Amino acid sequence: MSSVLGLCGPAPNPCRNDLSLPGYGLPVTDTATLLKDLHRDLPAGRLVTDPQVMAGLAHDDAEWAPWELPAAVVRAESAREVQLVVGLAIEHRVPVIPRGSGTGLSGGANAVAGSIVIDLSRMNEIKIIDPVERLAVVGPGVINDDLRAACAQQGLWYPPDPASSPWSSIGGNVATNAGGVCCVKYGVTGDYVLELEVVNGRGELVRLGRRTAKGVAGYDLTSLLVGSEGTLGIVTEISVRLRQQRPIEHTVVGYFDSVTDAGVAVTKIAEAGLTPSALELVDRHCLEAVDAWKNMGLSADANVILLGRTDAPGEAGAAEASAMITAFETGGATWSAQTDDQQEGDALFAARRLAYPALERLGPVLTEDICLPLRNVPAMLSRIEQIAVDHDTKIANIAHAGDGNLHPLLITPIGDEQAKIRAQQAFSDIIAGCLELGGTVTGEHGVGLLKLPGLADELSPAVQQMQADVKAALDPYGILNPGKAIV
Amino acid sequence: MSSVLGLCGPAPNPCRNDLSLPGYGLPVTDTATLLKDLHRDLPAGRLVTDPQVMAGLAHDDAEWAPWELPAAVVRAESAREVQLVVGLAIEHRVPVIPRGSGTGLSGGANAVAGSIVIDLSRMNEIKIIDPVERLAVVGPGVINDDLRAACAQQGLWYPPDPASSPWSSIGGNVATNAGGVCCVKYGVTGDYVLELEVVNGRGELVRLGRRTAKGVAGYDLTSLLVGSEGTLGIVTEISVRLRQQRPIEHTVVGYFDSVTDAGVAVTKIAEAGLTPSALELVDRHCLEAVDAWKNMGLSADANVILLGRTDAPGEAGAAEASAMITAFETGGATWSAQTDDQQEGDALFAARRLAYPALERLGPVLTEDICLPLRNVPAMLSRIEQIAVDHDTKIANIAHAGDGNLHPLLITPIGDEQAKIRAQQAFSDIIAGCLELGGTVTGEHGVGLLKLPGLADELSPAVQQMQADVKAALDPYGILNPGKAIV
Repeated sequence: MSSVLGLCGPAPNPCRNDLSLPGYGLPVTDTATLLKDLHRDLPAGRLVTDPQVMAGLAHDDAEWAPWELPAAVVRAESAREVQLVVGLAIEHRVPVIPRGSGTGLSGGANAVAGSIVIDLSRMNEIKIIDPVERLAVVGPGVINDDLRAACAQQGLWYPPDPASSPWSSIGGNVATNAGGVCCVKYGVTGDYVLELEVVNGRGELVRLGRRTAKGVAGYDLTSLLVGSEGTLGIVTEISVRLRQQRPIEHTVVGYFDSVTDAGVAVTKIAEAGLTPSALELVDRHCLEAVDAWKNMGLSADANVILLGRTDAPGEAGAAEASAMITAFETGGATWSAQTDDQQEGDALFAARRLAYPALERLGPVLTEDICLPLRNVPAMLSRIEQIAVDHDTKIANIAHAGDGNLHPLLITPIGDEQAKIRAQQAFSDIIAGCLELGGTVTGEHGVGLLKLPGLADELSPAVQQMQADVKAALDPYGILNPGKAIV
Repeated sequence: MSSVLGLCGPAPNPCRNDLSLPGYGLPVTDTATLLKDLHRDLPAGRLVTDPQVMAGLAHDDAEWAPWELPAAVVRAESAREVQLVVGLAIEHRVPVIPRGSGTGLSGGANAVAGSIVIDLSRMNEIKIIDPVERLAVVGPGVINDDLRAACAQQGLWYPPDPASSPWSSIGGNVATNAGGVCCVKYGVTGDYVLELEVVNGRGELVRLGRRTAKGVAGYDLTSLLVGSEGTLGIVTEISVRLRQQRPIEHTVVGYFDSVTDAGVAVTKIAEAGLTPSALELVDRHCLEAVDAWKNMGLSADANVILLGRTDAPGEAGAAEASAMITAFETGGATWSAQTDDQQEGDALFAARRLAYPALERLGPVLTEDICLPLRNVPAMLSRIEQIAVDHDTKIANIAHAGDGNLHPLLITPIGDEQAKIRAQQAFSDIIAGCLELGGTVTGEHGVGLLKLPGLADELSPAVQQMQADVKAALDPYGILNPGKAIV
């Protein structure tokens, strides 16, 4: 159209097509020169080139996502150092791949040959916790639980609580827009990000957003950066909104015969107008794995459990907990109970927390992360059971059921290549089924590498083009974690 | 940099510089041909060319923001019609200016000569209210209060409540990321937008975001579009998140001798760890204007009032109301009271609601919209008093005090040109003072035209360039409301 209409046509985009070429189309620079420049410009103790050390920093926790050894890893200690590395990456035209703790589950932090991995985990200072403005300012390497603990000391609460919270960094949480258990009531990471300090695609250090409670000055580039997996900029400081600490939660538990019954109970909770502060599903495969490991004896009594919480204060909390029990029973619970003892509640939630590591003991776990309309959760859970049969694959289910975010866990015996192929087919079928039922291919883990095919199915070509246009506009040299997050 | 480094340099941006030229650099098309094409392609009853009718649709409510008569106004009735008009705008290279109810306060909907105004107010269908998924799907022309009323019938609540809620449209609220009274606890419009149907800068009809509770598939273009004032796309359908209706609020009121005392009380509320569901400030000028109009007798007893609310359930609400009273008294309240009678509370809040129309009876009102860290609210309120003296300008204050969002209202006698010049100087001084105190030049009204100079002072050149790059990427023909929202 631009050639016909002249004046103001679409800007040519020299980067876009390159992204799909092998090695992402970036020329393989002379690695020796790159390393020499990095060594010249960085303080001592930052540069890692030992292949064995690099191997541990060249990928995240995504099962089966490809990765290669980078040219170097830089353990950055300041925004200035990040800026310096990005400057060299622009000069040498090599990809930079930012990483935090590497707990991602989609391959978003996986390196390619010739690239520079920027490890931000040393930038772990909690700079400000301000009870009046109710905000915190942290380095990207601060561990989620560390921030939460520091806030708690001042009566404050940073809600986003991914299952990885003991290990994952706030920078990584921002890069993937991480969710968690309390998101069903309190939203995801992006809902708490006020301001970002970022090294952008031109190597400039910029501040996006603001620390005031509200503000609409200019486009919301802060939200655009959240969840962009380091493909639009590298976050070097984060200001997050905090909440006041909340009352002790009431915990409810329901046992169900089937995942479908449990799914129906979830919709009953929504229909009853309840707003739980957590609503988690754990299926038989998970319960058995936890029992095999920790001998909790759960799978003797339940096929599926739903764990709910409410943090409404005082008698409102007790009333909401009772109403949740009623919804469980309407949905077909075989047994249910509630407690306002936090420790007792935490013990019940331990089954949820332990499910993933318990399953990992059985073999490689490929974690799905689909999110559906609540009404379609029972149908999707049924489909997953059928897909497991169809492809002779063990599929366990944990789910943030209250917001329709399911995590089917595909487990394959170690070294069984045929099982792996069957699991990959099951993975594709789950994504296809989710899209048919009005869902999205990733609720909270991000696109990374694993969800690129699903993303291509979910988004229209016109929207894919808009995403690519934004990427080209903000990463003009095509060096920011190319090949991830968008198709 | 691109010319030196070659391969993958920044894309040239043919549109950017044009935006600052008179008439925004778009060639004046042959208006007769444009009108002929619009007439040919649109159904009967859509096209308005009568200058008198167009004059009422060529601007919003921003005092002193410039506007011109457009070539035509189209009263669109469907996304297809919007798409058709954008297609012709691309073909003829004329600006399109979307508008809802025209209640904006920054000039974001103001027309330029030769442009097409797209009036979306007829697209006012409430398509879905879904109590299970807790979402609504509406046309952009749906009036805020109409959506709220329809939700209430099903026990649901759409929180964003700008003062314009009886007249403003959801589309306009999205375009400006409108705030309101309950934002202090419940966030702004953008926090509720799930999915947008948009005609983009290439004239394509696209869906951005999703209707599931969570989702991170691709860049968050939804949040990018929110608050972009029609400069990145024209919204033709909106899916919003809803909440369950909340308990009856407790209302508290405090009288203060000075705005500074009231400002201190606001910080005391924050220090006490309280989370009011509303915290509004109304100053002496407003109280006198309301008394002069409605004879409420407020200004006899108070110089400044703070109005607070809490919607915590049951005894927690009563306790929070009492704690707010304590904070008022610590801050220097001369009198305070609380009520859990909703009607009595509403009567108190009437003073807040009536302040703006009461002041408008005195002359043209230029509305400021700054947002500051809470800690700096007292200092800013003092500065505003001094600025009023310095420039011999009457400045009234209403404020969403709980989130630091102040609305100084600059009032000039009708027809007094000298007073207008002094008021404009006061306006500039307020913006400068706000930036010095760590604030932003617009908390919730948007940049439009009035805040373009302030925006240039607030954002760094590098961030301004990023904004311009995004604009060029998504509006390649430079036709989407050019000259607004970004510098």
